Amino acid sequence: MSASIPPAADVYPHRHLLGIEGLQPQDILMLLDRAEAAVEISRQVEKKKSVLRGRTQINLFFEASTRTQSSFEIAGKRLGADVMNMSVSSSSVKKGETLIDTAATLNAMHPDIIVVRHHAAGAVHLLAQKVGCSVINAGDGAHEHPTQALLDALTIRRHKGKIARLTVTICGDILHSRVARSNIILLNALGARVKVVAPATLLPSGIEQMGVEVCRDMRQGLDGADIVMMLRLQRERMSGAFIPSVREYFRYYGLDREKLSAAKPDALVMHPGPMNRGVEIDPEIADGPQSLIREQVEMGVAVRMAVLEALAAHLPTR
Amino acid sequence: MSASIPPAADVYPHRHLLGIEGLQPQDILMLLDRAEAAVEISRQVEKKKSVLRGRTQINLFFEASTRTQSSFEIAGKRLGADVMNMSVSSSSVKKGETLIDTAATLNAMHPDIIVVRHHAAGAVHLLAQKVGCSVINAGDGAHEHPTQALLDALTIRRHKGKIARLTVTICGDILHSRVARSNIILLNALGARVKVVAPATLLPSGIEQMGVEVCRDMRQGLDGADIVMMLRLQRERMSGAFIPSVREYFRYYGLDREKLSAAKPDALVMHPGPMNRGVEIDPEIADGPQSLIREQVEMGVAVRMAVLEALAAHLPTR
Amino acid sequence: MSASIPPAADVYPHRHLLGIEGLQPQDILMLLDRAEAAVEISRQVEKKKSVLRGRTQINLFFEASTRTQSSFEIAGKRLGADVMNMSVSSSSVKKGETLIDTAATLNAMHPDIIVVRHHAAGAVHLLAQKVGCSVINAGDGAHEHPTQALLDALTIRRHKGKIARLTVTICGDILHSRVARSNIILLNALGARVKVVAPATLLPSGIEQMGVEVCRDMRQGLDGADIVMMLRLQRERMSGAFIPSVREYFRYYGLDREKLSAAKPDALVMHPGPMNRGVEIDPEIADGPQSLIREQVEMGVAVRMAVLEALAAHLPTR
Repeated sequence: MSASIPPAADVYPHRHLLGIEGLQPQDILMLLDRAEAAVEISRQVEKKKSVLRGRTQINLFFEASTRTQSSFEIAGKRLGADVMNMSVSSSSVKKGETLIDTAATLNAMHPDIIVVRHHAAGAVHLLAQKVGCSVINAGDGAHEHPTQALLDALTIRRHKGKIARLTVTICGDILHSRVARSNIILLNALGARVKVVAPATLLPSGIEQMGVEVCRDMRQGLDGADIVMMLRLQRERMSGAFIPSVREYFRYYGLDREKLSAAKPDALVMHPGPMNRGVEIDPEIADGPQSLIREQVEMGVAVRMAVLEALAAHLPTR
Repeated sequence: MSASIPPAADVYPHRHLLGIEGLQPQDILMLLDRAEAAVEISRQVEKKKSVLRGRTQINLFFEASTRTQSSFEIAGKRLGADVMNMSVSSSSVKKGETLIDTAATLNAMHPDIIVVRHHAAGAVHLLAQKVGCSVINAGDGAHEHPTQALLDALTIRRHKGKIARLTVTICGDILHSRVARSNIILLNALGARVKVVAPATLLPSGIEQMGVEVCRDMRQGLDGADIVMMLRLQRERMSGAFIPSVREYFRYYGLDREKLSAAKPDALVMHPGPMNRGVEIDPEIADGPQSLIREQVEMGVAVRMAVLEALAAHLPTR
Repeated sequence: MSASIPPAADVYPHRHLLGIEGLQPQDILMLLDRAEAAVEISRQVEKKKSVLRGRTQINLFFEASTRTQSSFEIAGKRLGADVMNMSVSSSSVKKGETLIDTAATLNAMHPDIIVVRHHAAGAVHLLAQKVGCSVINAGDGAHEHPTQALLDALTIRRHKGKIARLTVTICGDILHSRVARSNIILLNALGARVKVVAPATLLPSGIEQMGVEVCRDMRQGLDGADIVMMLRLQRERMSGAFIPSVREYFRYYGLDREKLSAAKPDALVMHPGPMNRGVEIDPEIADGPQSLIREQVEMGVAVRMAVLEALAAHLPTR
């Protein structure tokens, strides 16, 4: 945790955005400041800028995702890019082509930016080493999902005016969550206090070494929280014995009015979506006045525009 | 049935197009007049207009559809919109997200227009209540498919010069057909005489109250018809016992030369597609000189351009 | 085999590109010359031209293909076209619509160019007869894949300075390969010497009549070769008894360093992709200094831009 946060950087110093890990606080702040400006673009009638005109953006999704892929597609199109979606179901992966061959093939088509989601942690880093263009990690296994952490930070900052010294509690399936991982790294980098709450089976061992406080129940976890981040229960990633019963899960870890009362009275509630209503969150809370869930989606488009624009500044110009 | 049809309205007075029901005759006529102009745009070499430049159109299809989705995509692109397709198979619906959450998520991305097809009647109305943008119903269950009715009316008017006082016979699976429903409402609003022919099991009870004449055989139904609208036999929507045998169906309800001879000599034949050749229509008729089936597809693009443009006039401007 | 190759034509004389068969050498050369210019466009930062602005390109793929569809999509977008992808899985084919009805439907939407891949040889020709726009064959059954042959020729010519009098050996599953067929026709037209090597079960009868030398083993086939074209082993197209064991196949027909030593020392290696590494080609060769495999992909975009632009010159203008 930094004692003092530096001012935002002028330029983003990397060719890729592969994770929050490795970013300096000033880089994160720079992206958040740019995203603030991008929020206004999407609220206008004519949402078109030409900063990416003539550039090719490929969305390469090995895992389906409505909101993340749509958010990147809209972000790219609003910046004037030619956007091409490639989903795994219609791709050569079925024919046994390797990830590296797919990367090399796409690279030969001279894209400027490839946005990648992959089910394996590390796959995006590997791909980034094989291409000449910029790569954005849109989620790799249980590893990182950096634009989600950025959009969460942007949403928080717009409401609380800062990140530093806030208490943020992340609740739920920490073990399978790249969202949790990226958020923990970012929040620590910007000086927040991070607490996590999860059933023992959904908590990665050694999580304490990431600089978080581990709480075993929601009351302890939410005590004094400014922000409550709920995670999606990713039952599709769990194997047999460890899948909790939905009813039991909601009873102990689902966010309802009573559990939320342990947080600060002005605490705000977040969820990366899509929600399992009645599993990890009570619909009353999801749709209530403390919820920022819809705003997170709006900030998602803004953050992705900011990242695309920041990376474009690294592309060669003539 | 109106005794006299008013002149076309100057502006379309609604934010959405959810159905033909609720439209005034002058609104329908306004859309048809605008569509006439749009026909010419698609026949030009450079088909691009900029009326939707910088606007975001989302095609949200919970049911697959080649022609309707393509038609809306082409229409939006020809008007300069950024068009994003979202089909259910790659969406969060699989992850258990509700329709309302999907709507709220998309809405947060600031689209200008959402085009929706959904398998449940009423789903599109529900979605329209939850978003801040314009919504176009591209077919909801057995309820409405308003752009199909508009394109059918446009096609008819271009050949017969009017709708009023024509006799239009709609034949086939009325029970499952949103096409039939939207057409009946529109044709009645513009003063046509509408007859329907269907097997008893494919006729909704109380259909007479919609202002149509029910005929139980094709000869009676086609007698004096100016227009014969065949419907697709939607076997995929039927349950066991009620699925007619294809051979029997064609014998009694399939349109062939002999049955068509009961209509007026200059009667024209329509079908919303995709056709089951040899089931509801004889290929000889489908491809014959009285068929308007291909022209309906062309009019589909024009009508969708007209609707998109009419709704765009309602979007806020600066 | 032509004794002397004429200069490139000024204009492409056909409305479609359905196959290499039927093209004159000067037409092929014209497309290759245009493609040379297109290579430079994709290497620039701003890759956008406006030659297809306001034109509608439909990519109609009845077989999934990452690289070919992507290549056409990127090519069209870089020329400013509105590109619409239609894949079979979300199309009316599931509803029993015929190819002809699909063609007629699309045609009614006034596209300018339809790019088609279909699993049946001849389907693309049939479709071309039913539409008013230009059609490009992106692969039909085991028949032709003309843009693949053009990109292969472009790649060869950029490295060897010519096609005429080179010895090109095509190895592998000749029987199922439209790539082989189109390449044989093109290479013969431009005066190359073509040799083929395949197991007896993967060699079409009468192949000698296409003007190739048939070799039964790799040593004989590669002897004196300037270019070695490996084909993908298309196990998905083979039926039971004829599927070779992968290990046996690699032993006798897989390209490794030892087999390649029979070719000329400066021989170059090609593969249309996606590769089965360790089946038809040793990864050491695929990634080695003699491999042109990545460059083929780059040339693919350039050739498709050249073809789209050549066909656009045939579209009516005002």
